[in-house]
Amino acid sequence: MTRTRLRDGSLSYREGNEVEWIKSHERIDDLQVKGLGIIQNPKWFCFGIDAVLVSHFVEAKKESHIVDLGTGTGIIPLLLSARFESVRVTGLEIQAEVADMAWRSVMYNQLQDRIKIHQGDIKNIKALLKAECADVVVSNPPYFKHKSGILNQTDYKTISRHEVLMSLEDLMVAAYHCLKPGGAFYIIHRPDRMVDLVWTARLHRLEPKKMQLIQAYYDSKPNLMLVKCVKFGNPELTFEKPLVVYEKDGSYTQAIKTIYQEAQITVF
Amino acid sequence: MTRTRLRDGSLSYREGNEVEWIKSHERIDDLQVKGLGIIQNPKWFCFGIDAVLVSHFVEAKKESHIVDLGTGTGIIPLLLSARFESVRVTGLEIQAEVADMAWRSVMYNQLQDRIKIHQGDIKNIKALLKAECADVVVSNPPYFKHKSGILNQTDYKTISRHEVLMSLEDLMVAAYHCLKPGGAFYIIHRPDRMVDLVWTARLHRLEPKKMQLIQAYYDSKPNLMLVKCVKFGNPELTFEKPLVVYEKDGSYTQAIKTIYQEAQITVF
Repeated sequence: MTRTRLRDGSLSYREGNEVEWIKSHERIDDLQVKGLGIIQNPKWFCFGIDAVLVSHFVEAKKESHIVDLGTGTGIIPLLLSARFESVRVTGLEIQAEVADMAWRSVMYNQLQDRIKIHQGDIKNIKALLKAECADVVVSNPPYFKHKSGILNQTDYKTISRHEVLMSLEDLMVAAYHCLKPGGAFYIIHRPDRMVDLVWTARLHRLEPKKMQLIQAYYDSKPNLMLVKCVKFGNPELTFEKPLVVYEKDGSYTQAIKTIYQEAQITVF
Repeated sequence: MTRTRLRDGSLSYREGNEVEWIKSHERIDDLQVKGLGIIQNPKWFCFGIDAVLVSHFVEAKKESHIVDLGTGTGIIPLLLSARFESVRVTGLEIQAEVADMAWRSVMYNQLQDRIKIHQGDIKNIKALLKAECADVVVSNPPYFKHKSGILNQTDYKTISRHEVLMSLEDLMVAAYHCLKPGGAFYIIHRPDRMVDLVWTARLHRLEPKKMQLIQAYYDSKPNLMLVKCVKFGNPELTFEKPLVVYEKDGSYTQAIKTIYQEAQITVF
């Protein structure tokens, strides 16, 4: 049984497959962002803090067209559509069943005039999206390098976490193709891939311009990083203050609370 | 008048040019590290926390040969000779008068069997030092990009702060030349040059392997960074915890106190 907040704000309890929106093992989770819901399958993966953080890191203008590379179940397009009231977002997802979930979430939220979901391979980006169609590109890509020994290369979790189908190189080529000159690419990744990311970005004329490291506590090592790259940008990097997630007592820091408040997501 | 601690630990007060060690405008400063003194000219520049931090960041073995590129008045060789009891250090400095000060500091401290100072241009490294002569290379280089508009390009301060005579590219070429395969290059720089540093390092087969950002307070932006690159190293970067210099009340953090204590430098 799944608890769902309807578009009018009321709560509804629905059994298994009764509703046309959801399939076996799926559920509709209440995003608590302007009444939005997202269809997820907990057997595959559910969105995490990473999607919220990178969505918050994005800067966009009123009429921006944003492309999300590897959109998964469409969490980033949903959050961005709530944050920026008139942007259009195109999400690209290689896995047909996952793209289908993302598209059903878009329809469930009646956002089909603002969010498009394309099923396709970013390695084939030139056939999927027009060159320079985007003001902004965003991605929460697989973090781990592809190692040939990985079992279950078709497994949904593996594909979303390991570079089986999308390398950093593929990502930069696709971002470069989509972006207008001067457009920005926002990405979240692990700091241990920082050299790879910076190297590949500059190689593809996407100059890293802003970086923020994310760490669990004030005296922890960083375990995530946010990077903004600008197409044809001049070399000069600005570092933000590190983003710390927890206070000593385990509660969220004010910085994280503010991000969730701005996204209007309830935190506990 | 300059207060000087002699080799036996006692203090001595000397007038202007009375002592053969120092020239006009120079002074011998007590490093308070194993009785070491350093000859400096406050009209040009004096060593700062940067030299102490990068010296502490260096890892060396007992018999290591360390090369310091752009040694200035020789502060890094002095600190390293105190920290690692049997290493040999070669300092390279382009400015003849500064190299002369460094050499006089070496002699003053009776370290001429362990520290060599070469006067020369790192762009000419192949004529100055043998290939693969070093286990470790270290540098506290000029931080600012060379802009053609800079006045006083021969000014000592300008040369030590701006890439007039030594670019990041020159530095990487020189470090690559000196290092044995697997040897490490330790460098301190400004975070806004991070992309340039990482890019140039990898281009010259010096893979960035460890990085530590330095920030004034827990909630400040980083304003310095320490990077360890390994010749022919595999891609994978480890981030250390950020190194925070001051507590909220302006006193040094325990991390900084420990670094100064390990260097046996007195902080106030």
